[in-house]
Amino acid sequence: MNANTDSYLIGVDFGTLSGRAVVVRASDGAEAGTAVHEFAHRVIEDRLPGGGVRLGPDWALQSPLDWLDVLRTAVPEAVAAAGVDPARVIGIGTDFTACTVLPVRADGTPLCFETPERPHAWPKLWKHHAAQAHADRINALAAERGEPWLARYGGKISAEWEFAKGLQVLEEDPEVYARAERWIEAADWIIWQLTGVETRNVCTAGYKGIFQDGSYPSADFLAGLNPDFSGFIDKLGRELSPLGGLAGRLTAEAAGWTKLPEGIAVAVGNVDAHVTSAAADAVRPGQMVAIMGTSTCHVMSSDRLAEVPGMCGVVRDGIVPGLWGYEAGQSGVGDIFAWFVDTCVPASYLRRADERGLTVHDLLAELAAAQPVGAHGLVALDWHNGNRSVLVDHDLSGVIVGQTLATRPEDIYRALVEATAFGARLIVETFEAAGVPVAEFVVAGGLLKNPFLMQVYADVLRRPLSVIGSEQGPALGSAIHAAVAAGAHADIQRAAAAMGRRREDVYLPDERRAGVYDLLYAAYRALHDHFGDGRVLHALRAIRNEARRAPAAQALDGARP
Amino acid sequence: MNANTDSYLIGVDFGTLSGRAVVVRASDGAEAGTAVHEFAHRVIEDRLPGGGVRLGPDWALQSPLDWLDVLRTAVPEAVAAAGVDPARVIGIGTDFTACTVLPVRADGTPLCFETPERPHAWPKLWKHHAAQAHADRINALAAERGEPWLARYGGKISAEWEFAKGLQVLEEDPEVYARAERWIEAADWIIWQLTGVETRNVCTAGYKGIFQDGSYPSADFLAGLNPDFSGFIDKLGRELSPLGGLAGRLTAEAAGWTKLPEGIAVAVGNVDAHVTSAAADAVRPGQMVAIMGTSTCHVMSSDRLAEVPGMCGVVRDGIVPGLWGYEAGQSGVGDIFAWFVDTCVPASYLRRADERGLTVHDLLAELAAAQPVGAHGLVALDWHNGNRSVLVDHDLSGVIVGQTLATRPEDIYRALVEATAFGARLIVETFEAAGVPVAEFVVAGGLLKNPFLMQVYADVLRRPLSVIGSEQGPALGSAIHAAVAAGAHADIQRAAAAMGRRREDVYLPDERRAGVYDLLYAAYRALHDHFGDGRVLHALRAIRNEARRAPAAQALDGARP
Repeated sequence: MNANTDSYLIGVDFGTLSGRAVVVRASDGAEAGTAVHEFAHRVIEDRLPGGGVRLGPDWALQSPLDWLDVLRTAVPEAVAAAGVDPARVIGIGTDFTACTVLPVRADGTPLCFETPERPHAWPKLWKHHAAQAHADRINALAAERGEPWLARYGGKISAEWEFAKGLQVLEEDPEVYARAERWIEAADWIIWQLTGVETRNVCTAGYKGIFQDGSYPSADFLAGLNPDFSGFIDKLGRELSPLGGLAGRLTAEAAGWTKLPEGIAVAVGNVDAHVTSAAADAVRPGQMVAIMGTSTCHVMSSDRLAEVPGMCGVVRDGIVPGLWGYEAGQSGVGDIFAWFVDTCVPASYLRRADERGLTVHDLLAELAAAQPVGAHGLVALDWHNGNRSVLVDHDLSGVIVGQTLATRPEDIYRALVEATAFGARLIVETFEAAGVPVAEFVVAGGLLKNPFLMQVYADVLRRPLSVIGSEQGPALGSAIHAAVAAGAHADIQRAAAAMGRRREDVYLPDERRAGVYDLLYAAYRALHDHFGDGRVLHALRAIRNEARRAPAAQALDGARP
Repeated sequence: MNANTDSYLIGVDFGTLSGRAVVVRASDGAEAGTAVHEFAHRVIEDRLPGGGVRLGPDWALQSPLDWLDVLRTAVPEAVAAAGVDPARVIGIGTDFTACTVLPVRADGTPLCFETPERPHAWPKLWKHHAAQAHADRINALAAERGEPWLARYGGKISAEWEFAKGLQVLEEDPEVYARAERWIEAADWIIWQLTGVETRNVCTAGYKGIFQDGSYPSADFLAGLNPDFSGFIDKLGRELSPLGGLAGRLTAEAAGWTKLPEGIAVAVGNVDAHVTSAAADAVRPGQMVAIMGTSTCHVMSSDRLAEVPGMCGVVRDGIVPGLWGYEAGQSGVGDIFAWFVDTCVPASYLRRADERGLTVHDLLAELAAAQPVGAHGLVALDWHNGNRSVLVDHDLSGVIVGQTLATRPEDIYRALVEATAFGARLIVETFEAAGVPVAEFVVAGGLLKNPFLMQVYADVLRRPLSVIGSEQGPALGSAIHAAVAAGAHADIQRAAAAMGRRREDVYLPDERRAGVYDLLYAAYRALHDHFGDGRVLHALRAIRNEARRAPAAQALDGARP
């Protein structure tokens, strides 16, 4: 490549534990350089920074300082790594986890900069699950009133989204709620920092902000939840910006952080999952892109509008302008495997892995792959982090069935992998049953590095898997959006065709294995239906929460003879 | 004590992994010395000794050589440790796991000595669970024909017992079945070796051999299972010997093995659980003795005959002559905790335990004990080794419900401990609902060393726990039976009062904790009822067994791209 004449874009992907910048050539999507910045505060789950204030169960926060550090470090480092003259960079695009949302002043100042000792002043990360009770009330009232937007979200909005999280702030810390002049997705907040102007992207507004057919839920509806909630939408944005659009121009201050030229194009904010479909050149109707990492998001464009039970949402122009964008998801995938490896695997496996220079993940995958399908006698429910689709219930939890005294770690590992594949199959089947065809299953994300897992998915789904051609999925997608915003390509489809990449038929299903998986899937469905009503799991959650509220009352201290 | 004038008894306890001998003073039960012999072959589960023949799933065998080695080593070592003149020993009693059963020649020679390459020639250990299909057929036919003995076993006989295991031998290796002139409990076989005469004790005949009201199941019934099975009872014993009775006198050969005087009294054979009630001086009606080790047996005498659903059996004179003896059980207890510690606890916990000089069990118990009841949000089914009471189904398996990404090993450990306590509560409640009162809950066995677990049981059962006063429960009980056989005491009750011991109210329930456990127990009951029908768990077991039968067909080899 000729770094002196080509044009380049910067894509920045803000994840759960780090931010990643990539430098991409406008003509063909070639990746010239990349850099990662790990978030210093990681996920804030137990105590607020400073160590003082303890958080409740299911809380998950992030720090805006970590996000700004990505702009200051990862972006210039990626440009340096690329050996590209910063003057050749013509635009920057970003994507974020969602719904990651924060209360800010009218000038964009996060409230946690003012009152860092108040938990509700901090950004709530997507996986903050402490607003389930608020989501339940929103769903109940919406169903009761027959709100027309409810079916667009499969009949249930999620505890992860803007309204549930906002209602939790109002009711648990009304003072923070009152001081929050704006309630904004991190995806839009970071664009505000880059351009100096507040914009709201159509994607998060639709998927996370219940914006449908030109409006948010009515003030009347919101008052029914809580009279003080009726003005909530005044904290949101009314003028929405299209994906691939130009949000503004890089300010002098942001140019100083990023070492990029002042005034270059800044694309409208976007969500990590949705922007990945551009990177995989999979933005045509029926191409379902599964971004498989700590969790999995499924995004797919379609020319048909249908109301699919339990999906995360359908939003007009939500992935690319002109099509209906569908989203579904699994709240825990890689997170579950990581939890298992960290928490449930004995020392002898670490030693075996060490001796062979493997990771424990690799060793478990190797041992699991050597088993015939079904030989472990197990089936699991992949709800360790709740269920996003199709049950939309974050108070559900994991289940493992069939353990014996002969059950080994690789058996459970395999059962957990399979459980996530069954969860994916249920999502695909739910789409198709609702009349939205899934023509191609395209995989992106970190779990691509586990070929055993991929083969399980191909067998369970009974479909060939396509695979994204880049290891920088979201960041590349953001660069593609930046290319559209900067005018290097006419629209997202054409930019994706030029700059994105995908390999087809990388994993093919095996008929015999698929036949046994059908039997296990039937067991999964039986468990899914039995535990999905929440009767047992909600009771356990309620006992747990009560026990943690009043721990002293039941301690075993002094109970010994 | 004066070893030169007192009389002594030897008690020998044959367990799952070892045999233990104890030297006990006749007058007061004082334990003068003990020795243990670990079985060289341990439990034979994967391959036959010699490494050749592979066993199927759920098989569990033992070697008679290991049993004889206990007589040759542990008995003389215990006498030596006691510093007692062998001439002061007036009798020997033994107890065994049950139903541990073997095919032998008419002279008592085990068939595995003749054809060691045939799996069915070997003794089947109590926890051999590969005859479930045979047990199912026995139960179905007995129910269909209205066999009167069926209700004495709670409506189901177990796959662990003599008839199910015998039918498996007939149908899987008819040649071994034909050569088996006798089919005998190890409890009686060892007495045969000591005395030179075959006896059959009333306890195993009743609990494991379906001997009720003077007879075994009819030849007509057996022919209905398989025409070639009709003569099975000719391999059993018709003349039964009472507990505490004199089986015979020590032969010269056995005196040579044991270094005990030839001609001393040998007590009738017995079962480890049942004989323990004498050691705990708990042989009165309503005293339920729970022998808690790898599994748990519950034994209790009563003056009432009732047919309790799902118990292991009620046998006239089955624990002490003159009362109805009840038995129930939990197939996996300590085994489940051991499996968890070996298979599911990460290296960091081993390091923490090592640093503090604790076992991992102790560390987990300490961490679990520090939690408020219910704070883990979990409930488990303790069926990792099947369910003996009240479902009598060894094709069931374990279930864990409620795991999240925050679940830690001590949470699961605690949930497993609680699950076994819930299983015990269900057994107690089932007895009482059937009109058989449980007046006192007496604990014996190896799990007494875990005070956390004991407190959980007291809280879950809402009862004070009594505790046996000896660490050699079964062996002491066998010595007590030997004392009766030798004429040192008039009967088991009087011998138990003189030689056995028990402490009352050692663990007391706490009302507040018990209240939370009631909620968790309700969840346990819901799972128990849901999974107890076997619909899901039997399907998984069938898939597993099929996968293991035809592994090559579904291997993932070559499936990688």
